[in-house]
Amino acid sequence: MSSSNPLRDAQDRRLPRIAGPSGLVIFGVTGDLSRKKLMPAVYDLANRGLLPPGFSLIGFARREWEDEDFADEVYRAVKEHSRTPFRDEVWQQLSQGMRFVQGDFDDDEAFETLKKTMQELDAAQGTGSNFAFYLSVPPKFFPLVVQQLKKHNLADQKDGSWRRAVIEKPFGHDLASAKDLNEIVHEVFAPDQVFRIDHYLGKETVQNILALRFANTLFEPVWNRSYVDHVQITMAEDIGIGGRAGYYDGIGAARDVIQNHLLQLLALTAMEEPAAFDANALAAEKTKVLGAVRLPKDLAKSTVRAQYAAGWQGGAKAVGYLEEEGIDPKSTTDTYAAVKLEIDNRRWAGVPFYLRTGKRLGRRVTEIAVVFQRAPHSPFDHTATEELGQNALVIRVQPDEGVTLRFGSKVPGTSLEVRDVSMDFAYGESFTESSPEAYERLILDVLLGDANLFPRTEEVELSWKILDPIEQFWAKHGKPAQYESGTWGPVEADDMLARDGRSWRRP
Amino acid sequence: MSSSNPLRDAQDRRLPRIAGPSGLVIFGVTGDLSRKKLMPAVYDLANRGLLPPGFSLIGFARREWEDEDFADEVYRAVKEHSRTPFRDEVWQQLSQGMRFVQGDFDDDEAFETLKKTMQELDAAQGTGSNFAFYLSVPPKFFPLVVQQLKKHNLADQKDGSWRRAVIEKPFGHDLASAKDLNEIVHEVFAPDQVFRIDHYLGKETVQNILALRFANTLFEPVWNRSYVDHVQITMAEDIGIGGRAGYYDGIGAARDVIQNHLLQLLALTAMEEPAAFDANALAAEKTKVLGAVRLPKDLAKSTVRAQYAAGWQGGAKAVGYLEEEGIDPKSTTDTYAAVKLEIDNRRWAGVPFYLRTGKRLGRRVTEIAVVFQRAPHSPFDHTATEELGQNALVIRVQPDEGVTLRFGSKVPGTSLEVRDVSMDFAYGESFTESSPEAYERLILDVLLGDANLFPRTEEVELSWKILDPIEQFWAKHGKPAQYESGTWGPVEADDMLARDGRSWRRP
Repeated sequence: MSSSNPLRDAQDRRLPRIAGPSGLVIFGVTGDLSRKKLMPAVYDLANRGLLPPGFSLIGFARREWEDEDFADEVYRAVKEHSRTPFRDEVWQQLSQGMRFVQGDFDDDEAFETLKKTMQELDAAQGTGSNFAFYLSVPPKFFPLVVQQLKKHNLADQKDGSWRRAVIEKPFGHDLASAKDLNEIVHEVFAPDQVFRIDHYLGKETVQNILALRFANTLFEPVWNRSYVDHVQITMAEDIGIGGRAGYYDGIGAARDVIQNHLLQLLALTAMEEPAAFDANALAAEKTKVLGAVRLPKDLAKSTVRAQYAAGWQGGAKAVGYLEEEGIDPKSTTDTYAAVKLEIDNRRWAGVPFYLRTGKRLGRRVTEIAVVFQRAPHSPFDHTATEELGQNALVIRVQPDEGVTLRFGSKVPGTSLEVRDVSMDFAYGESFTESSPEAYERLILDVLLGDANLFPRTEEVELSWKILDPIEQFWAKHGKPAQYESGTWGPVEADDMLARDGRSWRRP
Repeated sequence: MSSSNPLRDAQDRRLPRIAGPSGLVIFGVTGDLSRKKLMPAVYDLANRGLLPPGFSLIGFARREWEDEDFADEVYRAVKEHSRTPFRDEVWQQLSQGMRFVQGDFDDDEAFETLKKTMQELDAAQGTGSNFAFYLSVPPKFFPLVVQQLKKHNLADQKDGSWRRAVIEKPFGHDLASAKDLNEIVHEVFAPDQVFRIDHYLGKETVQNILALRFANTLFEPVWNRSYVDHVQITMAEDIGIGGRAGYYDGIGAARDVIQNHLLQLLALTAMEEPAAFDANALAAEKTKVLGAVRLPKDLAKSTVRAQYAAGWQGGAKAVGYLEEEGIDPKSTTDTYAAVKLEIDNRRWAGVPFYLRTGKRLGRRVTEIAVVFQRAPHSPFDHTATEELGQNALVIRVQPDEGVTLRFGSKVPGTSLEVRDVSMDFAYGESFTESSPEAYERLILDVLLGDANLFPRTEEVELSWKILDPIEQFWAKHGKPAQYESGTWGPVEADDMLARDGRSWRRP
């Protein structure tokens, strides 16, 4: 594909990042993630001309498939879910490198077949012995697959070639299990071979946090305790647990979302400027700020967990969490979690970061709201500013990606009255380029060995270190609160902020 | 009119500012300003319920009119130019207080008639001997009218009543003449009786400069030399001199616009926070900052004057200034003026303020652009930010009133590239209230004795002190440059900024 490929966005044409000779092995290729996200992302990358001509895709699963069955499955997934238009010539080229290896994860023969298949592709497709292993498998199979890769020497990087492991969350369910998991992985793979996918970090708006803060002059001077009153980070879903009962129960909202997504958003929002825009420098700053996070002493007053009760959502009746199919009616798993964190450093001392996430809330939205203090003094009459709120910069991660600035402006009229107004920047309106899917970005990064957007061992462990005491406190003290489906969470979460003289945004 | 008047905007209903018993005398009532702005503004104020029931309007002019002729003239002006809908009951009440006094400005008898008319209205309409004199007269008649007011004791404030003088620009044509004028006025009126109309200061967006800066937390921390690179203040007109040749020639763009409007905008943009939002505190800060304005040493390099040459505008051929009817073909009057000013104080030292105004430019626009320095350091690759400009906050005074913030944001795509985007706040979209005309606001302020938005003697004199050396330099050195009608001014003005490594915005 030439560099004038029209499907590349303007940026890809100017600053092309094209993967070299390589292939991708997906374990658990028959799963939902693979079909809905990974296969379409591979096609979209190929369609944009960002994959090498001989790029190869190997599926590994138990199903009795031939290579053709696998290719048909990818074809259907691409047709249904890819972001860019279908082009037959792209598909023809891509499908030439598709192989399927049938087997269980404990099947040594299958792993030998995998090895041979990789060698065959090196010869036929020129993949150069460069392969990424995408472990899209349930957590319990995780150690087994990693050990099989070791046993069959599939993780070895010879003669300048590379092998990489891509890991999906959950990265353990507490600090101890995360350490165990990291130990298993690092027996086989060196730290720079491991790519932990937090797909949130692949989102344009998340990467934009860094551009916003460090490429501009305007924001960084007020990005500290002298001007910021508090920060709210919200990830709200409107759906319930759907078919994920088996996975979700016993995990809950805090482990599922706060430990990874929200603490990563906190780290990007709060970290110091990195010395450079590379993986080491970014990890150093994220690690520093996560290490400085402090839990308030009284967890009863600074954390809330809750379960959705029955209610109405999107015009339909919704059942409560405990009535969901496959859920133990006595489950204490949180479907909503809110925590107040502080950061013990010079920039943020005394500025609370409120994190919340939940299922069956008012609507689907993820945002970071930096709420500023009121002006230290107002020369205007009290009556002129009584309807004026606090200035806020809101980074809308999804949907309606963009940035909103709330500030006070004079109300038209013959007296001076100041009221909140908003300035808005919307990605959709400002750029003709459509945003790549997070998985496109992240798979390309893996193939390029660019680890900027992947959390490291230390970050994962520090995040569990923050969450563990909260989970332990919850396990010991009482039952979760309840909130009606379709509302914005339990009254206990409102009380938590009200005690600080604040309130949650209604995003 | 009750306080539930639907024509009052929300703010008027909450914080009503209603004039007490009073009347307005307009000298030069047959002129354009009176017909297009003053009469409609009086009606709009009445319609919004902001005038007292017995409010009275006296016209004074040479024309042979009876009261009824005058009322008919006001009626036509209101029908044609008022902002709010015509309501017969409002008109009926307002027209009861309309009187006309016929006479020349040197006619003592006419001024005695005026006095009697005012007394009659005090009795019939309850105006309480409170009158404002609006001097909508050519500058040459100015001293005469003021002296007549004195001679006939019309400026005297007895028994708690008030008399006020409203003065339109030009406030002189240099420092000496402005001082003469001020002396004449202040022989008759005390400083707090004098209201100099700079109608720009009545505009919502101009008043909003103060709300923006001082009611918010976000802007003031970066509103200084540590973050601001420079400020551009532009008032561009697309029209030529029209029928104003007699007034304009010999005056020019700098005297007509920079001395009053642009230096007032500079003062509001650059001044320190006032101790309170009242006339004395505001005047104190504006005076301080105007007193700190410094001209660069080399006026040849830091000022530009020019005249429009023939060209095309709005699809029609436009003649050059020297070919306009009534203009001396050898005139050196400037129709475009640009100056670079510095402010000698701790906040602004080293930050240039570029002011420009002109006729027959690209389009009609007035704006203040605060342009920020680049980020002191960028952790991103050079290539990532090469298309990134400087952050800027632009206050759009007219048209499309609002505020725009320009900043850098990540371009969607799989690599990190940062490009300028804009956030926008538009008055029209954020408020359902339509903005009152500047003259509504300012006439009401005069009747209320609220002098916040009126420049004082000291401000006028300081502004001339800034302009005088420029005008003297221009008078001595060479002829004005030329610029094609419909363009953005002479190349000399572009050169002036290019020498500083900057360029004018194309607004």
